[in-house]
Amino acid sequence: MLATVMYKAGDVRVENVPDAAINEPTDALVRVTRACICGSDLWPYKSLEPNAEPRVMGHESVGVVEEVGSDVSRIKPGDFVIMPFAFSDGTCEFCQEGLQTSCIHGGFFGNPLIAGAQAEALRIPQADGTLYPVSAGEDDALLASLLTLSDVMGTGHHAAVAANVAPGKSVAVVGDGAVGLCGVVAVKRLGAEQIIIMGRHPDRIALAKEFGATDVVSERGEEAVERVRELTGGLGVHSALECVGLDQSTETAILVTRPGGAVGRVGVPQGGTMPASAQAFYRNITVSGGPAPVRAYIDELLPDVLDGTIQPGRVFDRTIGLSETPDGYRAMNDREAIKVMIKP
Amino acid sequence: MLATVMYKAGDVRVENVPDAAINEPTDALVRVTRACICGSDLWPYKSLEPNAEPRVMGHESVGVVEEVGSDVSRIKPGDFVIMPFAFSDGTCEFCQEGLQTSCIHGGFFGNPLIAGAQAEALRIPQADGTLYPVSAGEDDALLASLLTLSDVMGTGHHAAVAANVAPGKSVAVVGDGAVGLCGVVAVKRLGAEQIIIMGRHPDRIALAKEFGATDVVSERGEEAVERVRELTGGLGVHSALECVGLDQSTETAILVTRPGGAVGRVGVPQGGTMPASAQAFYRNITVSGGPAPVRAYIDELLPDVLDGTIQPGRVFDRTIGLSETPDGYRAMNDREAIKVMIKP
Repeated sequence: MLATVMYKAGDVRVENVPDAAINEPTDALVRVTRACICGSDLWPYKSLEPNAEPRVMGHESVGVVEEVGSDVSRIKPGDFVIMPFAFSDGTCEFCQEGLQTSCIHGGFFGNPLIAGAQAEALRIPQADGTLYPVSAGEDDALLASLLTLSDVMGTGHHAAVAANVAPGKSVAVVGDGAVGLCGVVAVKRLGAEQIIIMGRHPDRIALAKEFGATDVVSERGEEAVERVRELTGGLGVHSALECVGLDQSTETAILVTRPGGAVGRVGVPQGGTMPASAQAFYRNITVSGGPAPVRAYIDELLPDVLDGTIQPGRVFDRTIGLSETPDGYRAMNDREAIKVMIKP
Repeated sequence: MLATVMYKAGDVRVENVPDAAINEPTDALVRVTRACICGSDLWPYKSLEPNAEPRVMGHESVGVVEEVGSDVSRIKPGDFVIMPFAFSDGTCEFCQEGLQTSCIHGGFFGNPLIAGAQAEALRIPQADGTLYPVSAGEDDALLASLLTLSDVMGTGHHAAVAANVAPGKSVAVVGDGAVGLCGVVAVKRLGAEQIIIMGRHPDRIALAKEFGATDVVSERGEEAVERVRELTGGLGVHSALECVGLDQSTETAILVTRPGGAVGRVGVPQGGTMPASAQAFYRNITVSGGPAPVRAYIDELLPDVLDGTIQPGRVFDRTIGLSETPDGYRAMNDREAIKVMIKP
């Protein structure tokens, strides 16, 4: 079958690889209907060492179940499913608490150990706990929005939940990538009154406004912090969503937040320590977040996707075939595309 | 009047200073009945520069109101009051939200601008918002516990609240100083089931056990983390209270916490960045806390102090006169005393 393999920074190829197959009785085999490229895929695209082990990329997809292992009972061949970016057994203590990204028997797709979804098909470990069956037709816009529930929309929602977003509150969304844009969707959905998008790409800002952003701050660093304070009566926002993962964006998220507020971070941190930690302390700012348990959020978000209340699939501004994946990486890395969908 | 003045690291003197007096119509003048030395007073005791401005130390006291300014209406001469370590107007947006330590017109006692409570008397700005009148007799044990509501007990409680401590949960308290010990009191009071005190001073550990600690971990660093994981089925605790403020203790607090758990930090951070931030992220650990709004907590904690349900005043293991304050600093710094009470 065809799959997207990353060898080193900048070196992504679509190649023939051994067909995905059931290995464990708890596995399912899924034929990919839609996959996509994630902002987090760009980190190895920028930095993967030449001697790293090659990996089949991709951790977001919707597809059709082709086959299940002997211990799989809830998922059946023919099911149309959403595949969260982390697999999880659905039964361990953390899964029961709704934190499937810390599942004791879980893991992540798209690394040297577990092949990813930018492929014709893939193996799904812990299929009963992982996959979310859904009835959906062939509507392209709906498929795009369903696909976002495998990561980017659930991740934006997680940032909002971690940042304690609530009706009537003021919120800053740091980063205008697809996660930040889905953050705006989530924040609007949760009833925030003032939604400040912090970014500088005109196409993304335009979409953020359509999603509900009320203010735009395109400055960076200290100037950005000052602008947000001006927009919030000098106090700062109740909640900030950190959707980038760099030290500067994390610092900005903390510094734009008012005393007693919260930062929800979902950008994969590129540093090991947290900047502005002392400022967070002196102002009693809560910092929360991490890899989003998107599996837990599908129950809540799916009805709004199905009835069109939210349309997070609009973050996809380019659709390509599987053979074009390398150019999809380039386009996202060059900021030519917000988020690229793959139609194998 | 007599007051405790710090000139530089290790140089604390009891001296005659100008009498405290009303400066603003919103002030009150309080004669100090009991004051004490705080663990945070030991930071300047260890590090204050020789050319720093001298300061009247102390930010914890109970006392009697002698005089009030013309705009003070709620507080009256003769009132016996608890003085929180931060003054606050009680009316601003943050005060109304219960975050008096971020009061827009507030500030802190015991610095070059605002004289502190290790003195015969002191000026209280924003007296109506700051002071908490209480009926209390001359019972020494009760006075000691009331005194803890001005900082150390409210601070331990804040750590527990920030760490989401709840009935039946497992909790680690990092640090066996007076704040950590009050943290144990708070955690027990909030119904935690497993309370692990992390410290190595036998007298403090003994008191922690009397306060409700169920386990003791005296190792440090990686070994300590391993021990806590052993005690919690390999998972870590639901909540950790960071009651020290050093990088190592902060890292320990994060690393002993299970995925989805929370760290409540009240130790004044000695570093500007937060260690183990990436580990906190990957495990969705919330980090919260800061200067405790102890003024907000008196309502909740006072009844339990008055009826003896909690006895946080037991953290005081030495009582001295005002003239002995320099030796009180020495004793706390040498770990001879857990916490020193001053009876002017």
